[in-house]
Amino acid sequence: MSPLVNECIRVATRPTGIPAPGHFRMDTAAVPPLEQGQILVQNQWLSVEPAMRGWLADANNYASVAVGDVMRSLCVGVVVQSRAKGFNEGECLMGWFGWQKYAAVQPAAVVQKITATDLPPSLYLGVLGLNGVTAATALDKLGQPQQGETVVVSTAAGGVGSCVGQLAKALGCRSVGLTSTPEKVQACQTRFGYDHAINYKTQDIGRALKEACPNGVDVYFDNTAGPISDAVLPHLAIGARVIVCGTASIANWDPPPSGLRVERILLTRRARMQGFILFDHMDTYPSYVRQLEDMVRTNQLAYSEHITDGLDTAMGAIQELYRGENLGKRLIRL
Amino acid sequence: MSPLVNECIRVATRPTGIPAPGHFRMDTAAVPPLEQGQILVQNQWLSVEPAMRGWLADANNYASVAVGDVMRSLCVGVVVQSRAKGFNEGECLMGWFGWQKYAAVQPAAVVQKITATDLPPSLYLGVLGLNGVTAATALDKLGQPQQGETVVVSTAAGGVGSCVGQLAKALGCRSVGLTSTPEKVQACQTRFGYDHAINYKTQDIGRALKEACPNGVDVYFDNTAGPISDAVLPHLAIGARVIVCGTASIANWDPPPSGLRVERILLTRRARMQGFILFDHMDTYPSYVRQLEDMVRTNQLAYSEHITDGLDTAMGAIQELYRGENLGKRLIRL
Repeated sequence: MSPLVNECIRVATRPTGIPAPGHFRMDTAAVPPLEQGQILVQNQWLSVEPAMRGWLADANNYASVAVGDVMRSLCVGVVVQSRAKGFNEGECLMGWFGWQKYAAVQPAAVVQKITATDLPPSLYLGVLGLNGVTAATALDKLGQPQQGETVVVSTAAGGVGSCVGQLAKALGCRSVGLTSTPEKVQACQTRFGYDHAINYKTQDIGRALKEACPNGVDVYFDNTAGPISDAVLPHLAIGARVIVCGTASIANWDPPPSGLRVERILLTRRARMQGFILFDHMDTYPSYVRQLEDMVRTNQLAYSEHITDGLDTAMGAIQELYRGENLGKRLIRL
Repeated sequence: MSPLVNECIRVATRPTGIPAPGHFRMDTAAVPPLEQGQILVQNQWLSVEPAMRGWLADANNYASVAVGDVMRSLCVGVVVQSRAKGFNEGECLMGWFGWQKYAAVQPAAVVQKITATDLPPSLYLGVLGLNGVTAATALDKLGQPQQGETVVVSTAAGGVGSCVGQLAKALGCRSVGLTSTPEKVQACQTRFGYDHAINYKTQDIGRALKEACPNGVDVYFDNTAGPISDAVLPHLAIGARVIVCGTASIANWDPPPSGLRVERILLTRRARMQGFILFDHMDTYPSYVRQLEDMVRTNQLAYSEHITDGLDTAMGAIQELYRGENLGKRLIRL
């Protein structure tokens, strides 16, 4: 058998703002013989995350990717060869396999084995993956929503946001989504079951929030930061919880941008604003996946996937995310 | 016996910024006969609080004082007549008696009886009162400082701040104080035992913080908001807790001022920023007073008092607080 040829995407230069195709380069090489303890995975699905901007930024980042490295990514793939105990050819895995065709990895790179045969494997990169688990973990641990409370979500039709909205509804909360196009408003209302969906680009967001949240906002699940948050925060209820999960609306944090001062709002509402990164909560990952699988099986958790074919389509995909061009979880199919 | 004559300070007009003497007026009237269930208290000490600005502001405030009412204040006084069960002539009380000579109040206005005879009663308006209990409660419940962590305090020589610094030291933390004059820096270093005291008006606060907090800031006890906070927040450590307890540096919140965007800091540091108002925690007030009394008795809790004599000196005292003219707890002695 002739050696396998790997194709991969490497970081070419470090972006200061949103990563664009020019910050990456394609590379091709023979797959070297597998070392003892390694697994060779053939990727079927690659993920594109808003968090990738952070991994590529060099300032103060919690999980930087080095220039020259294969771009870090969660992937779903099949084991084609195994020299690691507990892994067998033909098994389906989700893990940190990178933007490439073949990945030779240690077992530590595997986030989970996908054993369910009744659910599409791509879901483990979206609604049953980082997005769904981020939504479930952050909403549960930081948001602590109570029945009857009002939960406001930014990027409400996105991969994380659409899960948050549905989880909030399942908990008996009033769900209010903020999004950017008529199509996404429609998706919020019909697919994701929001009680209210607000188009922040065309509506007076302050007035719309006042109507949608007459008793104020108890939980704000923030995926955007920026002017959208500035419009939400004055509506916080007493004891509100703000989950800072993403900052999609801010293209560049250097120099640090200005915005609404939050101190008096937090003080008068005795509100809490807290940053969330899923990697701090990997111990509870499996239990949240099981909860989400059950919701998918019982049709309580709708999802959208935005799929393009071919490794090369990954290079521009982060930029597309930040332009708001995707509808649902952004995936690359190999 | 001729009827007692009361002198009081009433709210004359509602300030939009810092309350000044012109927002108040003196009033004199005979004390009416005491009703059944009331206690007549002769005030000995009146308190002046930064929070009074909030009580006088009309927008979104949690505890507004009406125009025409006697200015709300905590006071220490002696019972001169009692028609309420459980209260007797001669007892010393701390409670909501207002800026006046005599107060006829219900028992609900009493925060505590002062029974300790070995401690000056005025302390129950400062280090053993709202200031000390605010410091102890907020630091304990929201700050959750651990031994060896770094605690940064703004208005470090003030009534609340000086307690926070000393409580942090007693818990085995590194304490760093931010203050505004050489005299206050001196007080921080000598009286209040801070490991570092920074004059934010004359020093490069960013560089000074970097030197004083080589491992970052674990707890930031914020009494100022504004540019001081903007300088501290970039130094937060992973998992930091920010207690928003006061906003002394911001004279006016209408229109809402701009400042450093905090979202990315909170996200990358998984930090928490939370508003604190003592009135939400009155159930635990007595236990924190007992802890503070013990610290005063064992000389672990130094305090300063800034005293002026005569009811009329109260009217300009809030403005003086916001000008940073006081050193320690601001009190009016009658």
